[in-house]
Amino acid sequence: MKTESKKKQGQEKIAIIAGSKSDIKIVDDTSKTLSLLGLDHDIQFISAHRSPEQLRKFVLTSKVDLFIGIAGLSAQLPGFIASLTSRPVIGVPVDVKLGGLDALLSIVQMPPRVPVACVGVDNGKNAAILAGEILALKYPLLLKKIQDIRK
Amino acid sequence: MKTESKKKQGQEKIAIIAGSKSDIKIVDDTSKTLSLLGLDHDIQFISAHRSPEQLRKFVLTSKVDLFIGIAGLSAQLPGFIASLTSRPVIGVPVDVKLGGLDALLSIVQMPPRVPVACVGVDNGKNAAILAGEILALKYPLLLKKIQDIRK
Amino acid sequence: MKTESKKKQGQEKIAIIAGSKSDIKIVDDTSKTLSLLGLDHDIQFISAHRSPEQLRKFVLTSKVDLFIGIAGLSAQLPGFIASLTSRPVIGVPVDVKLGGLDALLSIVQMPPRVPVACVGVDNGKNAAILAGEILALKYPLLLKKIQDIRK
Amino acid sequence: MKTESKKKQGQEKIAIIAGSKSDIKIVDDTSKTLSLLGLDHDIQFISAHRSPEQLRKFVLTSKVDLFIGIAGLSAQLPGFIASLTSRPVIGVPVDVKLGGLDALLSIVQMPPRVPVACVGVDNGKNAAILAGEILALKYPLLLKKIQDIRK
Amino acid sequence: MKTESKKKQGQEKIAIIAGSKSDIKIVDDTSKTLSLLGLDHDIQFISAHRSPEQLRKFVLTSKVDLFIGIAGLSAQLPGFIASLTSRPVIGVPVDVKLGGLDALLSIVQMPPRVPVACVGVDNGKNAAILAGEILALKYPLLLKKIQDIRK
Amino acid sequence: MKTESKKKQGQEKIAIIAGSKSDIKIVDDTSKTLSLLGLDHDIQFISAHRSPEQLRKFVLTSKVDLFIGIAGLSAQLPGFIASLTSRPVIGVPVDVKLGGLDALLSIVQMPPRVPVACVGVDNGKNAAILAGEILALKYPLLLKKIQDIRK
Amino acid sequence: MKTESKKKQGQEKIAIIAGSKSDIKIVDDTSKTLSLLGLDHDIQFISAHRSPEQLRKFVLTSKVDLFIGIAGLSAQLPGFIASLTSRPVIGVPVDVKLGGLDALLSIVQMPPRVPVACVGVDNGKNAAILAGEILALKYPLLLKKIQDIRK
Amino acid sequence: MKTESKKKQGQEKIAIIAGSKSDIKIVDDTSKTLSLLGLDHDIQFISAHRSPEQLRKFVLTSKVDLFIGIAGLSAQLPGFIASLTSRPVIGVPVDVKLGGLDALLSIVQMPPRVPVACVGVDNGKNAAILAGEILALKYPLLLKKIQDIRK
Repeated sequence: MKTESKKKQGQEKIAIIAGSKSDIKIVDDTSKTLSLLGLDHDIQFISAHRSPEQLRKFVLTSKVDLFIGIAGLSAQLPGFIASLTSRPVIGVPVDVKLGGLDALLSIVQMPPRVPVACVGVDNGKNAAILAGEILALKYPLLLKKIQDIRK
Repeated sequence: MKTESKKKQGQEKIAIIAGSKSDIKIVDDTSKTLSLLGLDHDIQFISAHRSPEQLRKFVLTSKVDLFIGIAGLSAQLPGFIASLTSRPVIGVPVDVKLGGLDALLSIVQMPPRVPVACVGVDNGKNAAILAGEILALKYPLLLKKIQDIRK
Repeated sequence: MKTESKKKQGQEKIAIIAGSKSDIKIVDDTSKTLSLLGLDHDIQFISAHRSPEQLRKFVLTSKVDLFIGIAGLSAQLPGFIASLTSRPVIGVPVDVKLGGLDALLSIVQMPPRVPVACVGVDNGKNAAILAGEILALKYPLLLKKIQDIRK
Repeated sequence: MKTESKKKQGQEKIAIIAGSKSDIKIVDDTSKTLSLLGLDHDIQFISAHRSPEQLRKFVLTSKVDLFIGIAGLSAQLPGFIASLTSRPVIGVPVDVKLGGLDALLSIVQMPPRVPVACVGVDNGKNAAILAGEILALKYPLLLKKIQDIRK
Repeated sequence: MKTESKKKQGQEKIAIIAGSKSDIKIVDDTSKTLSLLGLDHDIQFISAHRSPEQLRKFVLTSKVDLFIGIAGLSAQLPGFIASLTSRPVIGVPVDVKLGGLDALLSIVQMPPRVPVACVGVDNGKNAAILAGEILALKYPLLLKKIQDIRK
Repeated sequence: MKTESKKKQGQEKIAIIAGSKSDIKIVDDTSKTLSLLGLDHDIQFISAHRSPEQLRKFVLTSKVDLFIGIAGLSAQLPGFIASLTSRPVIGVPVDVKLGGLDALLSIVQMPPRVPVACVGVDNGKNAAILAGEILALKYPLLLKKIQDIRK
Repeated sequence: MKTESKKKQGQEKIAIIAGSKSDIKIVDDTSKTLSLLGLDHDIQFISAHRSPEQLRKFVLTSKVDLFIGIAGLSAQLPGFIASLTSRPVIGVPVDVKLGGLDALLSIVQMPPRVPVACVGVDNGKNAAILAGEILALKYPLLLKKIQDIRK
Repeated sequence: MKTESKKKQGQEKIAIIAGSKSDIKIVDDTSKTLSLLGLDHDIQFISAHRSPEQLRKFVLTSKVDLFIGIAGLSAQLPGFIASLTSRPVIGVPVDVKLGGLDALLSIVQMPPRVPVACVGVDNGKNAAILAGEILALKYPLLLKKIQDIRK
């Protein structure tokens, strides 16, 4: 459960949290797109199921503006984060079994009052752009970069 | 395709757009929760399929911070909005047929670079709270109200 | 999030935890069958998503031998319990949407090393009997009652 | 988003529009079958989500008799075309994720009054023959060629 | 397996064929919309499975421009018609079991070279409008009526 | 659409009919198991959709005791045979798309009064043994061979 | 687990076995159709899961020509019968949960060498007619009655 | 149907039973994890469908504390065991067809009163850990090993 942080640790606007090292490809897609948007971000591999205490501490002490949770199977990581914070949480379902339908339903079907913003199966790129669109409300200079990347 | 606007038209932070009058229950759930958060909002019933020009004009001229698109079946409304703007778009799949699986997949499986933030089937309440969480990045006073409503 | 406890609080062998008061029918099925087996049990309504701290404290301080988690939609409650304890956790998916397929996949598709024992959709009765079978390894007198009830 | 046109541009009876260059195999199947039927056609790669204005202009100015829309995931391209024209639109779902079930439901479950004629997953050949059958109502000489190809 | 024909029998442009009297509601939706378009049509109730000879004779002797096949379950009627003619066949899946998923897949997943134009589950209205759009290639006066009905 | 017949043509007890040459592997599984049972059989490749007249003639003139229909996608072949005869028809769904779910539902969900005996996806071996079990009612000597093969 | 037998017990050609009294409607559909065919039959309610010994004894001692197993959920009854006999077994999936998809897959997806002849969800009528078609190989006089009922 | 037993035969606490030699990979995952926990176990390959008598005898004479049943397709093995014993039965669905959805539903959707504890598709590791958690109620020294393996 190591931590790969990018420069200026503690000042990132976004944290990517993945449930397993095996989600690395989707993490990379997300990270690269965030970098294209000039968005510093922290990357963590913390399982909601195997390290709940570590995940809980990370979420409660992190200063980021929003979280991106990436997970497969019974993908409870994004919902777990959402249960601990009122900052926006974006969820990315990963296809491990059943075409990713299990992860998709686990992430999107949250109960009333604890939303997760779900994007498509394996679609880390869209999670990054959605993160950029949300942060652009606070940091309007981002808008130009988002529009460039969407072309 | 009439328009029901709330007070201070043109100054709302959020637009709810539903594809059909038959989605009224989900629209009401969303609207009531936004009102509990003190968030003014505009409500529109414009079909992406039957009135694309009207929807296009509305999205391109609207000054809102974010859009909530509510639709059933081949629920292309949230994706249509997302294709025209870089502001965040939240999508709510409505159960009309097949338990809402058609609308869920139509909304969440967006192609790379054009994200929609999808919430659960018929879950307008979560769309409203997610909208509040996103706007709270810009309007921090919202945070207290969100935390109250989540309790 | 009130607590309905049965007699001899603190000495029950089993805790039933449901994510929502709306799961009451399945909770009742489970509770009645446990009572037929003579198994004292505690009943809690604590949402993994809305009251994660309360749920965490309950699981970490409870002295029960096993947990039964009952939840619908993105049914993360049984997995949340399983992430905090090495005592057996039985999960019951509740049909709220999509015939309960979302809850079933959320409960059963747990990642390696954090198992949940999943029973059928809305099948609280089977959760209770499975709990009895498991406890019978420790309390062999139970076996007779289980065999009676299965007839 | 380049344009590959076949001879006699502007006089084709059919336009094939695909949402992404990655749909090229299905585009080729469709195009080859149309060529066997002697049907001139224009081929465009225009995403409904990334280039909605370009797609809109193309549909509104095109003189073709019918459109074939090819797309995967949240396959809104055929429905987008159908929302802008009363000429027939044939939709071909492409298998990108989930066996193509997402694209199939996105294309076929159109709301009342805006039909798309959906064919099977990845079945560009059938889209071409259906196009031929439809045009044969206007150009009866086509019928012989269709019957040859179906043998 | 009786025949309900509308005036000017033998001169209709369209035949609606339903597999069972229990599909009557969808037949009515289709028929009413065709009537709004001023399109004379013949209505038949002939099961592909129980009366294949009768269906075969009807298709081979009918002079209509196109067929609309309406069926549930293993909905082979539209494909059966398509196997006997090169005129366009529109298929409407009816929800009898499994939300209509069985009928949808039975109609849309036709093998190469024998296309059916499938519309959404229970969506007879769209079948009628698609029929109008197709016939408008031959009878351009229809276009105005289609545009009126789509508003 | 050629015919591969085994010795003593016209006296076989069983006809295997496959919708496409691409189903050859499943045809072989079925044929080999029938041969192990000592059951002569005819093998035909006739598409219900592309050669309905040929299939119709074959079924109406064949003297076999039962038919085995093998098909993928919108697998109408077994149901087509069943509509023409009151002899037993066994259907084998082939996985071409969607894991074979389309073929399975197309074959098994037959309307009342026209049954097909469906076996599992790609399970030609079971079709052969079921055929043997059915014929053993008439030819009891088969029973011994079936019991041998099932061991 | 009582037994409702029809006249001439011990001489019936067919046994209907249902897993639960709650399957009574499907049992009735099956029984009525068998009676229309003049086929005497025995009706048993024996659960494969709750009374496996009773079911085993019944199957091993019964003299019938074929079995019809009717069950919902994890519908193991038809497969259980098939594992004990080489006489034909027809399975009818009953819709208790998930539209009957669980029962359908449980019945039809039998492993190689132990076939069950599966009919459609809740389709007891087709099970009866299929039984008639199979027995007609041995008792040709049945054929006329089957043809009457199929009209 | 041979037997591979580990040392001290007859004294194992757990029996792994797989329906087919083709399930060997999942059997190995389960066995290795049990060995890490220091849990002696017996491994059997006995099909519920092809060798029901052998399976029945094994279950009725075995002295183990619990059973782990591993099976694909119409995965009736865990339910078959559960019908014969009141000791806990853990079921592991194996992905042979349809992503393992058939085996998952066959195992988890047991009728009331005959529970199986289902884990995720192909997830033998979780079956082993769940077995350890259950036995730890009787053998508390196991707890330390489970906690080590879960880290």
